[in-house]
This record gives sequence, C-alpha cells and structure tokens, in this order.
Amino acid sequence: MSERINRQVLLRAHPVGAPRDTDFECVETSLPALGDGEFLLRNLYLSLDAGFRQWMNEGAGDGYLPAMELDEPVMGLVLGRVEESNHPLYAVGDLLMCRSRWEEFSIADGSDYMSKLAPDPEISPSCYLGILGPTGLTAYFGLRDVGRVQPGETVLISTAAGAVGSTAAQIAKIRGARVVGMTSTDEKCKWLTDFLGLDAAINYRAAGGVEAGIAQHCPQGVDVYFDNVGGETLDTVLAHLNERARVALSGAVSTYNTSEPVPGPFNMFKVITQRAILQGFMVTDYVEEYPAAIEEMTGWLKSGQLKNAEEVAIGIENTGPAFCRMFAGGNRGKLVVRLTENEG
Amino acid sequence: MSERINRQVLLRAHPVGAPRDTDFECVETSLPALGDGEFLLRNLYLSLDAGFRQWMNEGAGDGYLPAMELDEPVMGLVLGRVEESNHPLYAVGDLLMCRSRWEEFSIADGSDYMSKLAPDPEISPSCYLGILGPTGLTAYFGLRDVGRVQPGETVLISTAAGAVGSTAAQIAKIRGARVVGMTSTDEKCKWLTDFLGLDAAINYRAAGGVEAGIAQHCPQGVDVYFDNVGGETLDTVLAHLNERARVALSGAVSTYNTSEPVPGPFNMFKVITQRAILQGFMVTDYVEEYPAAIEEMTGWLKSGQLKNAEEVAIGIENTGPAFCRMFAGGNRGKLVVRLTENEG
Repeated sequence: MSERINRQVLLRAHPVGAPRDTDFECVETSLPALGDGEFLLRNLYLSLDAGFRQWMNEGAGDGYLPAMELDEPVMGLVLGRVEESNHPLYAVGDLLMCRSRWEEFSIADGSDYMSKLAPDPEISPSCYLGILGPTGLTAYFGLRDVGRVQPGETVLISTAAGAVGSTAAQIAKIRGARVVGMTSTDEKCKWLTDFLGLDAAINYRAAGGVEAGIAQHCPQGVDVYFDNVGGETLDTVLAHLNERARVALSGAVSTYNTSEPVPGPFNMFKVITQRAILQGFMVTDYVEEYPAAIEEMTGWLKSGQLKNAEEVAIGIENTGPAFCRMFAGGNRGKLVVRLTENEG
Repeated sequence: MSERINRQVLLRAHPVGAPRDTDFECVETSLPALGDGEFLLRNLYLSLDAGFRQWMNEGAGDGYLPAMELDEPVMGLVLGRVEESNHPLYAVGDLLMCRSRWEEFSIADGSDYMSKLAPDPEISPSCYLGILGPTGLTAYFGLRDVGRVQPGETVLISTAAGAVGSTAAQIAKIRGARVVGMTSTDEKCKWLTDFLGLDAAINYRAAGGVEAGIAQHCPQGVDVYFDNVGGETLDTVLAHLNERARVALSGAVSTYNTSEPVPGPFNMFKVITQRAILQGFMVTDYVEEYPAAIEEMTGWLKSGQLKNAEEVAIGIENTGPAFCRMFAGGNRGKLVVRLTENEG
C-alpha cells in the first residue's frame, strides 16, 4: 500500500501544574508498514482520562504504567476498527479498545491492554470508552466492592460531574442510596440534580466550601465516599464519616498536577474512631467480570435508569485543548475525541 | 464507715505538646459514702495509655469519650477489687477492670466500660490491663481482622516497644510472619530483637530515618503495617506497601500531642495503585470475643511464646510523671502504676 499520513499528538513539555495547550502538539507522521503479528487500527474515538496526567510528569513511571516521554505520542485509550491484520486473533472489521496513543491510526501487536467489543447496536460505540469502559467500570466495581452501598445510605461523590463521578452517582442512586455530588460550579450542580437526578449537589467553590456543603447536605453523615480527588477534600470528608464508613479511593486528581507531594488527610484519627476503611482499587483487577458488568449497565442504559453523560470533541487537533479543558472543570461526564476523518 | 482519704490525680492544665509533670497534681480528697446501686473499688493498678492523651485537649470530646475537664481526676483504666457494694451484679471481692479515674478508690455504678475478671493464678493481675487487656487485645484483633497476617508476610510495626506494638510484634511472629519493629533508640532496638525475638528493628531516629530503615529491613516491601503513630511515618510506609497490603490504623500517637491538625499521608496515590486498605478499628467492638482471645493469649503466655513486656511505676503520686515519661519514649512494653497502699 502507498504511504499514509498519521496525525499524532506529541508530548512537547512535561506539564507543570495544570496541563496547557502548548504541552501538546499535533503533527503529521507517516505510517510504517505492518510487521508480522501486527495489525492496523483506524481509531474512531480517543478517551481523555484525568488519571493519565499522572504519567506525564518526568520519570513518573510507577510499575503500573511507564512515564510518557517528550516528543513521543501521548499514551491513552482508543477505540478503533481493525483495517489490516497480520495477527491471528484480530480480524479486519473487529472493533477494539486498547491502550495506545493519541493518533488517528495505531499499529498494535495485542500486547497492550486490549479488549474486543461486541457493541450493542442501540448503544453509541463511544460508550465503550466511557460509561461502559474503564471509567464506568471503575464506578461500578468501586461502589460494589469497596463502597458496598446499601439502600438508604448516604453516598458522597467527588468530581461528580466527571466521567467516573457521574457514573458512580447514578449507580449509587440505582442501588437505592441518597446521593450527594460535589462539583465546581452552580451550573454543574444544577446538571447533577436536574439531569442526573442526584439528591443534592455541593459547589465546593461556594462560600463555606466542602465543609459547609457536607454539613448542609449530609446532615446524617457520610456512609460511602467515592473519592476521585484526594487531598484536602478527602480530609474534610473524613471528619464527616459515619461509623463503618467506606472510602473508595478511585483517583487523586488533586495530586496529578503537582510535582511536590500533596498533604494527605489530617483526620486519620477519625478513621480510627469511626472504624472506617480507606481502600484503593484498580478497575483492571476486574477484567474477568467486565462482560457481566457491561451487560448489567447496558440494561440500565436502555431502560433509561443510567444516562450516558458524555461530551465529544471533534478532530485529533483538538485533543490536547480538550484534555486541558477537563482540568479546568469544563466538561460534564466523559470526554472523548471523535476522529471525524476516520468515520464511515 | 468513717470518712476515708482518696488520693487522686487531677488534670491541672491541658497539656500543650507532650504532657509535663505540672499538668497533673496528686491531691487528697475524701471519699463520699456509697449511694444506691453503687460500689466501691479499691484500685490495685492504673493503666497508662497514650491514647488517652487525645482527650486531655480542651474540648476534645468526640463521641467516643468526653474531653477531660480541668481540676477533675484524669480519666483512665483501672484494675480494682470490690470492697463494698450496693449493686446486685458486683460482689465484694470481685476483681474488675473499668474505665474510671487515676485514683486509689473509685466509686462506680457499672455504667462505664467494665469487665469482671477471673484471673489465672499463674498470671500477674496487671496483665489484664496490658497484654491481656485493651492494649494486648488491640494488637490481637487488629492483626487478626485488619492485618489478616499470613505466614511469610512482612509485618511492620510502629512504636514496637510500646504496649500495643510489643504485643502485636509477638503475635505476628506467632502467626508466622517476618516482623520488623520501629522504635526510638538503639537500646530498644536491641530489646526488640534480642528479648522479643523480632526479625529486625529500625531506630527511626538514626541517619536515614524510617525511609532508610524500611529500605534496609523490608527489601520485599510491607504486607501489613500496624500503625500506632500516623503522620509522617505512616506516609513513608505507604510508599513501601506491597500489592493488597493492609494498614491497621490502631492509634495516631503523633497527633495526640498537637493542637493543630497534623498532615496525614501524602502517598495516598500509592494506596490506589497497590489496592491497599487503610482501616481503623476499635478494640471495644470485640467485647464478646475477649474471653476467647484472652484464653488463647494466656496459653501463649504460659508456654512462653508470648512475653509480658511490662513496666511498673509505684504509687499514685508517680502516675503523672510516668505518663509523661511514656511520651518521651522511656518505657518498654505496657506501663502500669501499682498502688502499693492498696495491696494486701
């Protein structure tokens, strides 16, 4: 085949604090020929995940993922269709989700995290990167195995308008809990209660902040805290935990943008007296249970119990700016990039 | 009966930082007559517990225990024998452990935490305040239900020369773990390895501190951390946790002496990626299981597998100074006060 252009987004600078547009650059490269055992993905959607910010720091590799290198394509999750294949397990036409790079085409050999999708025709394929993908599954398993939500309990969710938070909030409602979400603007608060159906929402930037918001909206204390941010917010929540409360440590957004360590919770003594549990979990531990979870959540999506909260940026060249906007609190729900050139 | 003198230790000042001798005063008071439903305890031993420091701060009541008031007797655990009784459940001669006050005689009505002891004749009664009492049981249940120690795992213990730590370290050895203790002097390190039989000990005041000590003595990482101190030490340990590690939050000595909140762990992200659990627990949740635990530990004491690490101060007037010495790291094992006037 003739040489093809592949547009990629390179990491041009290790972000300092919140990522900026200039940390990324969209460039044209040429796509090499496929080797033995490789296959070519035409990427349809890129997933933007706050968690990946962590590995943009210099030397941030941690045994879970390697650090990203300067002038290399940014690492991320993609949803793509196999267009050519020299691999026995992946056939032309297969729809795959894999950990790849911010680029229009990916050459893969199946060694990275990858799953073959059998998309439901009533469901947008982009759902498999979000509400039915890693972020949605994070919410699902975190609430099930760490939160262990019971009907009537009070569940508090940080970054409730984000991809994980918006799914966790909705699942907690389905499980019969009273659900309170935290977010950064009154507008997003209104979206949480009116669109997603939460019982209450806290604008943590309002007067009194998290403390006043919890006092007002969780007068019976907090039974389950689904924590996506860590830091001071976690600390404040600890002071409001009920006995035997569970804190699902899902993410620590407040630390992703810092090069210095961020002070953790001051209120650990409260964890002792309340016999609380703080537990970290990784969605990748549940790979074998993904199909059953996706099936259950697909049912909720079709019945309207679960809404696909999603924002779509268009075009590879908007990937970096969309990622930066996410850290400014600009998105509601899952943020994905649709690669229009690749559709149809 | 004629009026009797009762010597008590009063809280004269809310300690600022580490408690000082002058925060306490031993005074003579007169013992009132017994009311209906009350009984008189002649106290044999007072238990000195770092955890009670917490409630010496002004307004420190927290739903678990009330704050201690100035010019009132200091709250604490005592071991006493019933000398007079107007209470149907407590007879003259009964040996009781209860939450009472630092005093030679206590009038009680059974409403406070209290247990009737059937002491083993081969065991010193003081054991029931320490290794067979709340501190020993804290170690026992914390390792069993939170630590869930498995043979061959590496168990790290803070304040390993303290009452809880010295028992936890020994029980972890009995459970087949490799046990590393942290303490504040080379002399206590030697005591931990030579007398208590730990596999290694870390002097956290030595060059390199906790970080270097863990790197040297826990090269395979930490599977269980029995945390009595919280604060920076907890933070450092988090960075060394193995996958699925368990942190038993037993105490937070590093915070008891502060009036300002102490920064908690910075390394919460590590808790996520390692799927670790930080869990608070309170020994008082296990009251129904105390007898079985005491029986098992009594067996270990008699067989010599478990040593009663204990230091005994003599006389009510030495109670305050002994308590202060504990915060300077001066004791090894459980610290109790024997009230000599009350013996025989």
